[in-house]
Amino acid sequence: MSQPIRLALLLGSCRRNGNTPGIASWVQKLVDARLNPAGTPKAFDIIPVDPTKAPHPYGPIIDGSRLPAQINDAQEYSTEAIQEWSQFIASCAGFIVVTPQYNGGYPGELKNAIDHLYREWRGKPIITIAFGGHGGGKCAVQLQGVYAQLKMRIPVEPVCLTLPRTYIEGEERVSTDGKYPDFLAQYVDAVGEAADGLKASLVSNESN
Amino acid sequence: MSQPIRLALLLGSCRRNGNTPGIASWVQKLVDARLNPAGTPKAFDIIPVDPTKAPHPYGPIIDGSRLPAQINDAQEYSTEAIQEWSQFIASCAGFIVVTPQYNGGYPGELKNAIDHLYREWRGKPIITIAFGGHGGGKCAVQLQGVYAQLKMRIPVEPVCLTLPRTYIEGEERVSTDGKYPDFLAQYVDAVGEAADGLKASLVSNESN
Repeated sequence: MSQPIRLALLLGSCRRNGNTPGIASWVQKLVDARLNPAGTPKAFDIIPVDPTKAPHPYGPIIDGSRLPAQINDAQEYSTEAIQEWSQFIASCAGFIVVTPQYNGGYPGELKNAIDHLYREWRGKPIITIAFGGHGGGKCAVQLQGVYAQLKMRIPVEPVCLTLPRTYIEGEERVSTDGKYPDFLAQYVDAVGEAADGLKASLVSNESN
Repeated sequence: MSQPIRLALLLGSCRRNGNTPGIASWVQKLVDARLNPAGTPKAFDIIPVDPTKAPHPYGPIIDGSRLPAQINDAQEYSTEAIQEWSQFIASCAGFIVVTPQYNGGYPGELKNAIDHLYREWRGKPIITIAFGGHGGGKCAVQLQGVYAQLKMRIPVEPVCLTLPRTYIEGEERVSTDGKYPDFLAQYVDAVGEAADGLKASLVSNESN
């Protein structure tokens, strides 16, 4: 029996008291249910990546004696943390990004995580679930420019979630406890279709 | 005699062995000469900000109990480092960003530095000197989207510097030693005009 295909779920931010961990847990459950139907062998393994924990390299690129694009072997990265990040991302067949929009763009820690590597991303499919008070679409557009530059594949349009103001400016938060707020229900189909697109892109790549 | 107007020169990256410190030093000299003509009292004070040193807050936003947009007083920020960053940025009348393009976007540490604050940026003018193997224009466009979201003023188009391949992929680097490579000469006028635009924007704001 073959190993499950590994997908990383990259959390754009782990700001304390933010909505990312809750929305990411909701996305993970939906995508898992869609790609691993009950009664079938597990085909996909979805691994959440918290920007504050290894293998995420955290922080900016400090050593730049060589550009990531010039590195062909993970052993050539300057620190063990980046070597580990490289090996992890290289082991993943595709990516799901769940990210807040910050000031019309992506969070810095997400961009740093991407920029530490280069060849590890190339040719792989990536889907984006962005969110914000107005849907996070500006963040998603900026990310798609970055993915394109890295020659990643973008099988579907980003899913953009509009959070009620009480979740942005007020006290309410999407929790990881499994009880998800009603406003997310309207996006269930879109996340499922994005998961289908990711799967189709992986399958089409394997058959190439 | 009035105090010089304070401008911050934000370095987008301090990757070791990168070109940012050298290009930033070249920009600082040009802007200083343009805004502080010989024989006149010093009108503008240009302060370089290295992302690896205070008052730059480094790293991502960790505490998010309140959004920067909800904070009206620097004392309300969660750490002394962010309070210091807030006070510094609040003390500046305008900004010059000198940044490399990374993978079609801005470096993560630059975005983190911006996202730590909110009201401190609002209404202030900002000019951008971006660079890369193809001029860094994609980075500049993404930054302008962020500035617009923050309701900053953008008095001039970004200046985009195309670095020779030997400065990107090879061993050559723009040094801070005051001997600048010939390829930069073609951009001297554009940087001077950007400085004029920044000054005009500051003056027009004062007269409002």
